[in-house]
Amino acid sequence: MGATDTRIHIPAGKGRAVRVPAGGRFRLTDLRGRQCCDLFAFNAHDVKEYASAEHTRVYNGNLFPRVGQPFVTQGRRPILLFQEDHTPGKHDMLVAACNPSRYALLGVTGDHASCEDNLLSSLRALGHEVEVPQPINLFTNIPLSPQGELDWQPALTAPGDYVVFRAEMDVIVCASSCPQDIVAINARHVTDLELTIL
Amino acid sequence: MGATDTRIHIPAGKGRAVRVPAGGRFRLTDLRGRQCCDLFAFNAHDVKEYASAEHTRVYNGNLFPRVGQPFVTQGRRPILLFQEDHTPGKHDMLVAACNPSRYALLGVTGDHASCEDNLLSSLRALGHEVEVPQPINLFTNIPLSPQGELDWQPALTAPGDYVVFRAEMDVIVCASSCPQDIVAINARHVTDLELTIL
Repeated sequence: MGATDTRIHIPAGKGRAVRVPAGGRFRLTDLRGRQCCDLFAFNAHDVKEYASAEHTRVYNGNLFPRVGQPFVTQGRRPILLFQEDHTPGKHDMLVAACNPSRYALLGVTGDHASCEDNLLSSLRALGHEVEVPQPINLFTNIPLSPQGELDWQPALTAPGDYVVFRAEMDVIVCASSCPQDIVAINARHVTDLELTIL
Repeated sequence: MGATDTRIHIPAGKGRAVRVPAGGRFRLTDLRGRQCCDLFAFNAHDVKEYASAEHTRVYNGNLFPRVGQPFVTQGRRPILLFQEDHTPGKHDMLVAACNPSRYALLGVTGDHASCEDNLLSSLRALGHEVEVPQPINLFTNIPLSPQGELDWQPALTAPGDYVVFRAEMDVIVCASSCPQDIVAINARHVTDLELTIL
């Protein structure tokens, strides 16, 4: 770990956004294990351009980038490169960010934190109103049956597991510690993450 | 076919948009067979709300709605109900609409029609500037390997195969005859579709 690393602590259930210049690298660490991280990446010069799941699937020809493959924008320009994966390798790009309607349908009455709200408030703090893209759901264990059925299983990550990305353009990245405590993806115990600028 | 049916012819490689009131039904027919149809649906009163693939996957727990299941918006409100499927049953909601960058990456120099441009121009003609959602790729045959790899195979539809939807709110639907003639999804022969308001 370099002396110049910038560590951004992401409290359980909260989100943080930061600008990373083109060529910069960052690490996302699941500090306690079994905690999903919703990651979003926007072109810092035009936040209407962002990491797009559906364009990335076409670009790489698979459901989720492998190490060495990029995430691309709607204009099919690389925005992040997936450089290292020190986890069991299970990530998702199929399910939407949790939002108030998700929790209402799960029976929650009243307010509940959500990755969508974490994204919107983190970007608003930087002066941007953004669309809510399909997130890059790091550490998120959504098995897919041969019949195309999805399931919501606990994350497989151990404490300290991490991934590393390189910014392929000037980006604003937002990472949210997913506050989902109704379904099992965070093992019903929402915990902290760390975003480290390398 | 009722006496009051409204038939909208969609020429090969073109798009058409139309308003359908809540409770209204419409049919999309692959007139010649093996022709993909990119379908989009927007809340007619607020086009920022639209049929969202990632929210629909969570709502139904599968990759693509089955007959009897809805497509939902970002607010997880049903917008279309999948009522009838008179095709081999292969549809897609994983790959982005083709756009100019898709054709540039496939080696096309100069202009090429695209589903994205068809959507934007059809909606602009109705006075709306819209985001480009992940489309509902009707008739589109994108097999998925157990390793999560996508493939682009010719549509399986025969001439006259069709699907029927019911609008669950006042919607603007846009259907595009996909102009993709480089990869095999339309058997490299782009043909007409029909949108019929029932």
